[in-house]
Amino acid sequence: MSRNATTDTTKLGRRTFLAGSAALGAAAAAALPAPAIASGTIELRMVTSWPKGLPGAGTGAERLARTIEEMSGDRLKIKFFAAGELVPALKCMDAVMDGTADLGHDASFYHHGKNPAFSVFFAVPFGMTAQEQAAWIYHGGGWQLWDELNQKFGIISFPAGQTATQSFGWFKKEINSMDDFKGLKMRIPGLGGELLKRVGGSAVLLPAGEIFAALQSGAIDAAEFIGPLNDLALGFHQVAKISYGPGVQEPGGMMQLMVNRKKYEALPKDLQAIIRIAAQWMHEDMKVDYDIGSGRTMEVLRTQHNVRFLRLNNDVLTGLGNAAGQLLQDMMDAGDDHMKRTLKSYLAARDNTMRFLRFNEQAFLNARTLGIKYPTA
Amino acid sequence: MSRNATTDTTKLGRRTFLAGSAALGAAAAAALPAPAIASGTIELRMVTSWPKGLPGAGTGAERLARTIEEMSGDRLKIKFFAAGELVPALKCMDAVMDGTADLGHDASFYHHGKNPAFSVFFAVPFGMTAQEQAAWIYHGGGWQLWDELNQKFGIISFPAGQTATQSFGWFKKEINSMDDFKGLKMRIPGLGGELLKRVGGSAVLLPAGEIFAALQSGAIDAAEFIGPLNDLALGFHQVAKISYGPGVQEPGGMMQLMVNRKKYEALPKDLQAIIRIAAQWMHEDMKVDYDIGSGRTMEVLRTQHNVRFLRLNNDVLTGLGNAAGQLLQDMMDAGDDHMKRTLKSYLAARDNTMRFLRFNEQAFLNARTLGIKYPTA
Repeated sequence: MSRNATTDTTKLGRRTFLAGSAALGAAAAAALPAPAIASGTIELRMVTSWPKGLPGAGTGAERLARTIEEMSGDRLKIKFFAAGELVPALKCMDAVMDGTADLGHDASFYHHGKNPAFSVFFAVPFGMTAQEQAAWIYHGGGWQLWDELNQKFGIISFPAGQTATQSFGWFKKEINSMDDFKGLKMRIPGLGGELLKRVGGSAVLLPAGEIFAALQSGAIDAAEFIGPLNDLALGFHQVAKISYGPGVQEPGGMMQLMVNRKKYEALPKDLQAIIRIAAQWMHEDMKVDYDIGSGRTMEVLRTQHNVRFLRLNNDVLTGLGNAAGQLLQDMMDAGDDHMKRTLKSYLAARDNTMRFLRFNEQAFLNARTLGIKYPTA
Repeated sequence: MSRNATTDTTKLGRRTFLAGSAALGAAAAAALPAPAIASGTIELRMVTSWPKGLPGAGTGAERLARTIEEMSGDRLKIKFFAAGELVPALKCMDAVMDGTADLGHDASFYHHGKNPAFSVFFAVPFGMTAQEQAAWIYHGGGWQLWDELNQKFGIISFPAGQTATQSFGWFKKEINSMDDFKGLKMRIPGLGGELLKRVGGSAVLLPAGEIFAALQSGAIDAAEFIGPLNDLALGFHQVAKISYGPGVQEPGGMMQLMVNRKKYEALPKDLQAIIRIAAQWMHEDMKVDYDIGSGRTMEVLRTQHNVRFLRLNNDVLTGLGNAAGQLLQDMMDAGDDHMKRTLKSYLAARDNTMRFLRFNEQAFLNARTLGIKYPTA
């Protein structure tokens, strides 16, 4: 599967210190047994699901590629493709599986059709927040369960970006009761989509670049993508004026860096470590990029585009929460052995981290909004 | 300042693949102009503030060292010291400044005496959570302000670990009103200590390894260190039975990896990137280690050691919050130019990220605890 990656030392020269790095690559080739280093620099192709320059996910994926190159001393060179440039937005996993690409950056729930457990590794309605989910993945056995699945598809995957708790979505009309979901056509993928179906709506999966047109034409009534940072860039506020929070369908959306497994295993150990650690670096870096960018863009949307940011009321939150709980229970009951083990592990981590967050972080966030006198900038 | 670091290729051999890596290091020395690579592997000394094997901070700092080695292909070898093994726990910064060590892992607020702004870069009472603070540091101008300060001391520093929102601390008696702080002697460093003084208590700074004895002897009445994961390891529950949350004094405690600046600047660019990215990797990895370990240890403390986990009441939270707000205002008014700019930037980031978290993450956490029927493990 590595035959599509070119190994070409003639393409060096983009930066002045590359001459030194090339020598280093050649030395590694002589000293290490890894077959992937036939000569000099290894070129890799990286496909993504994101429109070119999309804030957060797209710019983060590109920074990830550049940072891997930098840490490798340019022994790795990564050719980066936005959605559609090499393969369609939702076909990144296939591309990495068949070697059309070596690396892919997207969200695993786009591959729900291959196995519904892929959705669990993106986000679970009323499940864990970004940081809780990361705790499960890195220190609670989550990655091992995910890897068990990825191995069957010939890929290895690392968390590589987080959206933070998302928004619930863009609506043209208010949602005041559970009845308002009946007949609603909404762009909402993964388990969020399954949840919407259970409360009477119909769920549509569209890539980022196609949502605006569908919302504008009325093909869909509502849409969620990520949150204010991307929503402003994608222009949803031009065709809908209500943004609901909180994003109970995706309390933390985990992006992934997929690597063709044979290609990864053929790399020397230091380059494997560089890819793995860089992915986790981006996992945090993208989340905090979303955090700070989302606050800023919320204010732009509110003050310059008359967007109303509304909170779902408690009746609706409870209705959605109970439906989500039933969805999870049904997935546990009907799922295969891997799904059962995955959800059991997920729920154990959720019980565990909720206990701590409730005592400290959640209680702090609520304390901070008690009406305290505190300076502002 | 780099003269204390030894460069010694004879110390190789700890792992079988080191032979290859040594060749790689030698090639780098030949090809790159960086003066630090005189021959082969670069040995660095890393001091830390943490007792040997301390969960979270201590084990995280050691994993950071090993991961930097791994990504460098063992061109870097790091000799790791627990608190007191090379320098005392609170002297890591001095050691990195004077070249006794090349790297140091601790919390910048231990160096409040050198400049009070160092406390701002650890945690601010009623300030930002871990993720908000990271957003400020990485994408909101915070790192640049911190670096302006670090440059004056000849170090460069990277965030390299997070405690997550801490607990408020261990008490022998309940805290039911602001009067209960009068005369209270508590281990609480940094701005949390300043806050305690303002509400009538006296604040003591002790390293992790000395807190238990002081609490046991009655030299102090109360103590906060980090949270349940460390508290269990340090045995506080043996001498106090009440643990209060939330840790409003430290809503997110930022650990740091300090590097002797001249030493850092002499490294080749790829090794600089490896250190910088590994530090940010650990910044997330330690936090989620705390998240999952804290939930587990809370349950052990509650069920096996009869610890009472209590929440500060709203009157106390409001009293502390208002005092914290006044503390920040006074620091802005009395601070030097750098302090003023730092706090202005900090507060702008807080206003910004609070807006987003309130809409999504905080609202989600509260929605999740509305009494929804949801499966458990």
